[in-house]
Amino acid sequence: MWLLDIGNTTVKVKSDEGVARFGVSEYRFPSEPFYYINVNPKLAQTLATMPQAQDIAQWFVFESTYRGLGVDRIAACYTIENGVVVDAGSAITVDVMREGRHMGGFIMPGLSATKASFAKISSRLVYDLKPQTNLQQLPQSTEDALGYATLKPVVLMIADVRGDLPVYVTGGDGQRIVPYMEHAVYCEELVFEGMQKAIKEKGRVC
Amino acid sequence: MWLLDIGNTTVKVKSDEGVARFGVSEYRFPSEPFYYINVNPKLAQTLATMPQAQDIAQWFVFESTYRGLGVDRIAACYTIENGVVVDAGSAITVDVMREGRHMGGFIMPGLSATKASFAKISSRLVYDLKPQTNLQQLPQSTEDALGYATLKPVVLMIADVRGDLPVYVTGGDGQRIVPYMEHAVYCEELVFEGMQKAIKEKGRVC
Repeated sequence: MWLLDIGNTTVKVKSDEGVARFGVSEYRFPSEPFYYINVNPKLAQTLATMPQAQDIAQWFVFESTYRGLGVDRIAACYTIENGVVVDAGSAITVDVMREGRHMGGFIMPGLSATKASFAKISSRLVYDLKPQTNLQQLPQSTEDALGYATLKPVVLMIADVRGDLPVYVTGGDGQRIVPYMEHAVYCEELVFEGMQKAIKEKGRVC
Repeated sequence: MWLLDIGNTTVKVKSDEGVARFGVSEYRFPSEPFYYINVNPKLAQTLATMPQAQDIAQWFVFESTYRGLGVDRIAACYTIENGVVVDAGSAITVDVMREGRHMGGFIMPGLSATKASFAKISSRLVYDLKPQTNLQQLPQSTEDALGYATLKPVVLMIADVRGDLPVYVTGGDGQRIVPYMEHAVYCEELVFEGMQKAIKEKGRVC
């Protein structure tokens, strides 16, 4: 079974061979049947014309009052009963699940987007995110300040909504933010797990 | 007396006629003498060749262990004994002053930079910041989520470092963030006040 999670910059693919990531522009879709979710408006039409491609967006039975929730966020939340679900990619999405119900959420620019933002403001604000950034101490240099201001808003925004909930993190930059939060785990395949659950449920229904 | 606060996108000018803002590229420097501070690397050389231009960066007597603190941040802090100093422009700088001493600080992308960041990630993330955004409630739509995620990280980051200090806000977007914080005031001319203080002190010294 092929599963594709198609984003704005990356296509994540799960097959019997494991999980792989590709840039959107360089990816060639499989010729054999695949299930997919897609949030990239530029690819919607192409995918709709592929007979081997099955869009499973409508297969999720998901309770939420949020208008315009991306199917990738629904998939990431789909196996979580209670928890904050964070998908850290080109954007960082944060969603709160309580007793299997989606309580709301938000979206922030991803770590790379913030880095690009700083670089665009001034050539003095070009930096590389250090693996270990001290978020406890007020920065004492521009370099420290940039790393601090890239990571800490994400950490504080999650802390602000989590209450007593655990945090489940997925996405390409997930492992960069997990170390800064308590009771947070990295789940690489959260979106695929949600997709698999929806496919399984659909099988039961049909 | 002409005072110029030269940034990466804007030149702020204080003269006897009041305060005005200009885009960096469209601005024509005065032919009469002026005092300035400049953080825009692209303009440094041009300014250095103008005989009527007096750079006052070295006139600030400012205690800090922060390496690479921009002179605009020093000027904004220069009249504040105790407080968090926020300059919300193309970048948002946050600096903590206690008993006339700079304790550290950080820099975040400005509100427009965050908006541009979202737009670049996806055409679905284009929005206009509403004048009144609810930061207390978990967003229930993409539109709410974008405004929330533009303003709330700034508010939380300031709250995280302020302790018992008041907040002094300046800069073009200052008035957009002040309403979301307690004990925060907007001081349009904070940087100019710092410049004036430095010029006055220099006069006493010479």
